[in-house]
Amino acid sequence: MADVDFLKSKLTAHPDFPKKGIVFLDIFPILRDPLAFEALITHFLHHITSHTLGLSERRKIDVVVGLDARGFLLGPIIALRLGAAFVPVRKKGKLPGECVHAEYEKEYGTDSFEMHADAIKPGQNVIIIDDLIATGGSAKAAGELVKKLGGKTLEYLFIIELLFLKASSKLDAPVYSIIQSED
Amino acid sequence: MADVDFLKSKLTAHPDFPKKGIVFLDIFPILRDPLAFEALITHFLHHITSHTLGLSERRKIDVVVGLDARGFLLGPIIALRLGAAFVPVRKKGKLPGECVHAEYEKEYGTDSFEMHADAIKPGQNVIIIDDLIATGGSAKAAGELVKKLGGKTLEYLFIIELLFLKASSKLDAPVYSIIQSED
Repeated sequence: MADVDFLKSKLTAHPDFPKKGIVFLDIFPILRDPLAFEALITHFLHHITSHTLGLSERRKIDVVVGLDARGFLLGPIIALRLGAAFVPVRKKGKLPGECVHAEYEKEYGTDSFEMHADAIKPGQNVIIIDDLIATGGSAKAAGELVKKLGGKTLEYLFIIELLFLKASSKLDAPVYSIIQSED
Repeated sequence: MADVDFLKSKLTAHPDFPKKGIVFLDIFPILRDPLAFEALITHFLHHITSHTLGLSERRKIDVVVGLDARGFLLGPIIALRLGAAFVPVRKKGKLPGECVHAEYEKEYGTDSFEMHADAIKPGQNVIIIDDLIATGGSAKAAGELVKKLGGKTLEYLFIIELLFLKASSKLDAPVYSIIQSED
């Protein structure tokens, strides 16, 4: 699709960042170009309204969950356009008040994610968004937080998916990505 | 103003968070209510178009700079609505490619902020946005990064300003805040 090619052309690749052997794909050049950024948001919204929500049921997205920090760039805009709530997932100790917790594996040991305990009501329809899915550890933890509060994750959405890491097999709902990288 | 009272009513206050003696004002309940969130964004846009840009000159905002992580919740939406670029300020080591640096003081020692070296062109009009201004250390560092690239900061914008910390006296452009806290 033309919009996907346009968005791909905006990504910059940085070999050996943040460490040797990793090619970092930077999404910020998209956000620097209002036309590309609008194309990105429109692409997500078209997908959500035409596919995620399905055609056979009358349902809506109640909550958009965004992961700290780059999910914060996308989630609030998409939530506002859908008339949905935006709810953050943050690392432990960043959110005040009562929270639910989920652990995820990092390169060395584990870390903990949190979500406000009153952020999602049982039965609400949720989508989870971040800029990139690699191993899927943080997305999985976000899904666990939604489940703990009784929410239903309809889909996980990303700008970029690193297909070779096969993260989607770990998650409890479909993955949608605009750009797929094979290496 | 009615919209300011509405937004104030959505904030939650958390005494002794993240540590004893500090009352943490949480903005996330605003983002959970699409009507309140829209009121927040509209308030900023009305202010920017009617005050920040001035009436006597024909000028536009070229770049909206947002601070990691909570400035990421607001900056991209405002940039998109203004047709401006969104540019992030992040802690050292998070951005790939060539960057400019500025140090800021933390409670113990200093930390470093970065911005992509090609993110702002000389002479561009910039606004800097974050959720809250306390001592102003991080805002000051963001302003220094804009200046290093030759940009002109027209204003610093925040949802909440802790007036008693007198941060605005440290900055090279006016501060605008929607909600002011005296203690």
